[in-house]
Amino acid sequence: MVKTYIFGHKSPDTDSITSSLVMTNLEKVLGNEDAVACRLGSLNKETEYVLNYLDIEAPELIEKVEDEANVILVDHNSPAESVDNIENAKILKVVDHHKIAFETSYPLFVRAEPVGCTETILFKLYKENGVEVTKEIASLMLSAIVSDTLLLKSPTTTEDDIKAVKELAEIAEIDYETYGLDMLKAGTDLSSFSIEEILDLDAKQIDFKDVKSIVNQVNTASIPEVMEMKADLEAGMTKIIEEQGLDLFMLLITDIVNSNSQVIALGKDAALVEKAYNVKLEDNTVLLEGVVSRKKQVVPIMTESA
Amino acid sequence: MVKTYIFGHKSPDTDSITSSLVMTNLEKVLGNEDAVACRLGSLNKETEYVLNYLDIEAPELIEKVEDEANVILVDHNSPAESVDNIENAKILKVVDHHKIAFETSYPLFVRAEPVGCTETILFKLYKENGVEVTKEIASLMLSAIVSDTLLLKSPTTTEDDIKAVKELAEIAEIDYETYGLDMLKAGTDLSSFSIEEILDLDAKQIDFKDVKSIVNQVNTASIPEVMEMKADLEAGMTKIIEEQGLDLFMLLITDIVNSNSQVIALGKDAALVEKAYNVKLEDNTVLLEGVVSRKKQVVPIMTESA
Repeated sequence: MVKTYIFGHKSPDTDSITSSLVMTNLEKVLGNEDAVACRLGSLNKETEYVLNYLDIEAPELIEKVEDEANVILVDHNSPAESVDNIENAKILKVVDHHKIAFETSYPLFVRAEPVGCTETILFKLYKENGVEVTKEIASLMLSAIVSDTLLLKSPTTTEDDIKAVKELAEIAEIDYETYGLDMLKAGTDLSSFSIEEILDLDAKQIDFKDVKSIVNQVNTASIPEVMEMKADLEAGMTKIIEEQGLDLFMLLITDIVNSNSQVIALGKDAALVEKAYNVKLEDNTVLLEGVVSRKKQVVPIMTESA
Repeated sequence: MVKTYIFGHKSPDTDSITSSLVMTNLEKVLGNEDAVACRLGSLNKETEYVLNYLDIEAPELIEKVEDEANVILVDHNSPAESVDNIENAKILKVVDHHKIAFETSYPLFVRAEPVGCTETILFKLYKENGVEVTKEIASLMLSAIVSDTLLLKSPTTTEDDIKAVKELAEIAEIDYETYGLDMLKAGTDLSSFSIEEILDLDAKQIDFKDVKSIVNQVNTASIPEVMEMKADLEAGMTKIIEEQGLDLFMLLITDIVNSNSQVIALGKDAALVEKAYNVKLEDNTVLLEGVVSRKKQVVPIMTESA
């Protein structure tokens, strides 16, 4: 029996976890009985809320896959965000909504679309393949879209996402606005995390051209509350910069209610933030108004300025 | 008016030309009125036969696109096979059946599948979008699938390709076996080409790890007939090797009736062919039995052996 491991990115968010579950179900229904839903890290509070609410078990935690294992990547495609030994695996499929950052030596199935959430694409795949979207599957899909688009308010939101949420809310019989805000708020609870954990929760390694960076995003309903930890956060960021030889560590503290982000930027290339957004860091921090999307409002702008 | 240039790879084959036309029609029907079908090189004899037979005009020949132009890539994704200034363009979509060999700094629409022909994927896109496959569009699709799969006999052929050809033959009202063989044979007519042109007809720049190579494929109904030009072909290949600093020039002379390929290999790494296929080159040439697919039976094997 050759297993097919299906997983989202490291530091998994709700889209990565639910897409693993939803894609695994699709594969199984279509005849791939050896598909296994996996994850590459701990659940965040938001995803815990979702799985508890829906009473669904989390995907299996894995650190590696066997050599030449079959894998399906959801919600990511970059090797840097994937399982450590991805170069030894055979990638069967990719379903994703991020920029393309992988190469293969063989043709494969890739379904990428510039939409707000992987689940929006998976919803289409279910329809195209005539596979039933059960109440449970619809609830998982809906949760991820609401999460990735911050209740359809992020600039990453597309018509497809909005249409999907409306259809899915009917199937799931969920008032997505009430449920979604509760879910997002659950995700902002940092009380049980150490500084190290907060700095790892949604950290992505991204190189802005030659600038080796980590961009971490923490959602909150109150920026001042998170900024009370600023000194400790900076100490933790400095440690990671030294350990990993980074040029930049950018922490986005995103206000999900008012749609702004307070940035803390450290590292020898912290001034790249000033250049990219035409702002002045004071005491390593600045408020970026209207910025909520790392993918749409940070990566392209920082890359262009680097 | 911002145009969207839609094109296949350099040294275009029937799939690249017809996919450009078929994708452009799809875009137009779906509301992108500024889509323009383009091509990056001369038509080969096979494609000329197809367009003549169907009385359809060839896509517009282009060498460059404007800076920041919108482009849609069909039947390729590698920058090396694309328009020269692809790095200045905005790639909106990719529809392809090759290995993934491009990167972006932004999310985009990618539809790749490991099937025999881009048109097999486009046929699905038409269906998914509820767009009518006219007799003309079906004929174009059918021609490309028959071409890429050598009448469904190449090992690249999948169930999806077979299914598509059967459905398309009905819509197109074409006996695909008779039409297909005539089309393939038309493509083997080299009489009007100079040696330089033959060596450029379907040449792909491929690096097998560090081995900088060109792999060119010429279809024929008679290998001995092509081998009569061996001395001239070798002289031309040697010239290109020197001009481009290649490590290997591999010319596949593929017998489309009997499904074999005679290889001529030149360059300092010509022995890679011997290693990859466990054969001995004699006078720079060897018959590779059953080898007809560059993508499936050359690229992965040569890459692994390099």
